Amino acid sequence: MRTLKLTLQYDGTDFVGWQRQPNGVSIQELIERALEPIEGHAVTVTGAGRTDAGVHAIGQVASVQLESALDASSLLRALNATLPDAVRVTAVDDAPADFNARFAAVRKVYEYRIWNGPFVPPFERRYVWHVPQTLDLDRMREAGRALIGRHDFAAFRAAGSDVATSERTLRCLKVEAVNEKVTLMVAGDGFLRHMVRAIAGTLVDVGLGRRSIDSVSAALASRDRAQAGATAPALGLFLVRVEY
Amino acid sequence: MRTLKLTLQYDGTDFVGWQRQPNGVSIQELIERALEPIEGHAVTVTGAGRTDAGVHAIGQVASVQLESALDASSLLRALNATLPDAVRVTAVDDAPADFNARFAAVRKVYEYRIWNGPFVPPFERRYVWHVPQTLDLDRMREAGRALIGRHDFAAFRAAGSDVATSERTLRCLKVEAVNEKVTLMVAGDGFLRHMVRAIAGTLVDVGLGRRSIDSVSAALASRDRAQAGATAPALGLFLVRVEY
Repeated sequence: MRTLKLTLQYDGTDFVGWQRQPNGVSIQELIERALEPIEGHAVTVTGAGRTDAGVHAIGQVASVQLESALDASSLLRALNATLPDAVRVTAVDDAPADFNARFAAVRKVYEYRIWNGPFVPPFERRYVWHVPQTLDLDRMREAGRALIGRHDFAAFRAAGSDVATSERTLRCLKVEAVNEKVTLMVAGDGFLRHMVRAIAGTLVDVGLGRRSIDSVSAALASRDRAQAGATAPALGLFLVRVEY
Repeated sequence: MRTLKLTLQYDGTDFVGWQRQPNGVSIQELIERALEPIEGHAVTVTGAGRTDAGVHAIGQVASVQLESALDASSLLRALNATLPDAVRVTAVDDAPADFNARFAAVRKVYEYRIWNGPFVPPFERRYVWHVPQTLDLDRMREAGRALIGRHDFAAFRAAGSDVATSERTLRCLKVEAVNEKVTLMVAGDGFLRHMVRAIAGTLVDVGLGRRSIDSVSAALASRDRAQAGATAPALGLFLVRVEY
């Protein structure tokens, strides 16, 4: 038995998210199905981040224990030969026996991409949230600063979440633009469900002048989901990197 | 009656190409259908380049005669509100009464995009031809030089083409790479059906060492389709710009 670390990219458009679900095809299921013929029996993979339906990944990480003696590069080729082209394994690495992609993660980096122009180029349409009105990026940056650090992010999580604590540490929040493409980059030790999308939705409201800069720190302090902005759509969100 | 010049972008993946066809949805049909309620009756649009099924456009141009007095920016918004998001109108401009997007074109620029690495990122999978083996770009550039200028390109066109002459002038051919993405850029006064894709397929054979550099000029001189390489797949081809 050996433990492997898989690094993955996927276009989440047509999937129900990372985690196995009865109502559609998940990334987890695809990886497990691709590994099954190699291993000769069902296997379970553990993903670092449970990306939601429609969310993409540039650097998702998963761990799996295998009996197969296949070397890493053959395994990578075999997986990519089986998986649909919307999902690619970009690296297979040997890992310590007790490596768990979810619990060992110390830092995750996400990007939320917005198209801030009159129309979205067809080639970007699956990967950006369209906000046609001009965003004031400096207002978004100023409001975003209130979120950096260790806080209770209860106001920025999916309703009905039942995790033990909603305290998280946001290490970094940047808003950058290249022409009409605006990218919100966040890094932290962990994120609540919908947290990045709730931050994106709230900062877009600030960027459009629909809410004040100060209202973001007030929403954070309230711990009340209703005080923050709407959850931005899944299609703009990318899990960029997981660090261990 | 006035004549308008429409500039268009589209992701050609799900369409049968520019031209109306009985067997599926074409870009021409989509534009005509979007214009019909504005005009109150059926209209015909003329495209500069008849892109094939699966071929994309960053700067296709079409001409149309309309009675509607709607101003250009309202027309642009109305069209984009109706069209599927795989097709966008990027500009609407008034044109001289006799402007014909097809016959007035003096120069067209195409790009053919290749992913030259072990796997294609999921976000690029609809827009590149995957060539995993390493391409020798200098060999491709050297072979490509033989094609520049005015030539009979009969060896580089779709079998069964029946245009009056297969003489065309290729003004420019460049092969460039950014990391694993290789782009073949061509510009000319006009292109035969499948010409750019036949050039791409042939130069890739040269880049892989499957055929000699000299064989490209020999294929051109032969005017025999069988002497050039295979037609590269449609998904890597983009109509970038049409000049008037």
